[in-house]
Amino acid sequence: MKLLEERIQKDGIVRAGNVLKVDSFINHQMDIQLFSEMAKEWKRLFAGKNITKILTIEASGIGIAAVTAMEFGVPVVFAKKSQSINLDFDNYTTKIESFTHKRIYDVIVSKKFLSAEDHILIIDDFLANGCALEGLLHIVEEAGATVEGIGIAIEKGFQVGGEKIRERGIQLESLAIVESMDDETGEITFR
Amino acid sequence: MKLLEERIQKDGIVRAGNVLKVDSFINHQMDIQLFSEMAKEWKRLFAGKNITKILTIEASGIGIAAVTAMEFGVPVVFAKKSQSINLDFDNYTTKIESFTHKRIYDVIVSKKFLSAEDHILIIDDFLANGCALEGLLHIVEEAGATVEGIGIAIEKGFQVGGEKIRERGIQLESLAIVESMDDETGEITFR
Repeated sequence: MKLLEERIQKDGIVRAGNVLKVDSFINHQMDIQLFSEMAKEWKRLFAGKNITKILTIEASGIGIAAVTAMEFGVPVVFAKKSQSINLDFDNYTTKIESFTHKRIYDVIVSKKFLSAEDHILIIDDFLANGCALEGLLHIVEEAGATVEGIGIAIEKGFQVGGEKIRERGIQLESLAIVESMDDETGEITFR
Repeated sequence: MKLLEERIQKDGIVRAGNVLKVDSFINHQMDIQLFSEMAKEWKRLFAGKNITKILTIEASGIGIAAVTAMEFGVPVVFAKKSQSINLDFDNYTTKIESFTHKRIYDVIVSKKFLSAEDHILIIDDFLANGCALEGLLHIVEEAGATVEGIGIAIEKGFQVGGEKIRERGIQLESLAIVESMDDETGEITFR
């Protein structure tokens, strides 16, 4: 998606260790008008799919998922990363490793909000090694629900996550795929 | 707001310890169409205010803030609850105590995204003792920005947070104020 690629070129910052900072428009400050354009693009890309619910994971997926849900007219469920006293005990759970936070999380979705009747669109901001996504897919499988597709804002094409998902035959639509980036020159190349 | 009160009566669950579970439509599964109606109501209540940015706190404030930002045509900044490797070190920080998680958090907003020119609408899902809100207000003050108002989905009117905020002369618009609730009968009374 040209609009997103241009924005990443303009405001994205490449840091050592394969870090692409997009905190001025994606995951700390959120450009909601950009999200709305991204939502329209996913609506076009997943046209004809019967989607009943959007699934994402806290925290940075929630804003994009909420705006996308307005476009699709469906509710959002966001997976939680820790047990809260307000969560019931009847949950789907799995463990994922976070690239950003360098730790292992429990990922939790209440069984009340995912069922075998659901047709799920998964939305998230980043796809790199795919750990978070594999966790969400595992939860959808546990629920017996159907994954209709996955919408990602920014995929790091030089990491394995995207390839692993596509090999499974799932429709994965990443709106910007970074082929390479250089933290010394700041250069970002898209696929 | 009648629509929200009716929804709380229908789907809210009262638990011991002053817990009101609204996870089927607010903070685990999110009813985006309801959020859109809430956003329109805040737009009406804050009409005439010059709002440049919405501030919220992860995770459950983000969805409501994102949908509200579409209505106001402004970006959202969400405060983070822990240091991530992707955050810069030039941040506003404060500490808040979480009622839900029974622990103390660092709350962090990058200095890049709040400035003295900003006119802020704070949005969050719950107001009880007001600790999270006091933390956000502290950060806005540190930035020298102006708080134009605060929009809360559900205020627990029997706790002190709302009163403390109103005493400071800030326009606080809670769309549902719970006066009392009973975990034995499940009864919820609104102000």
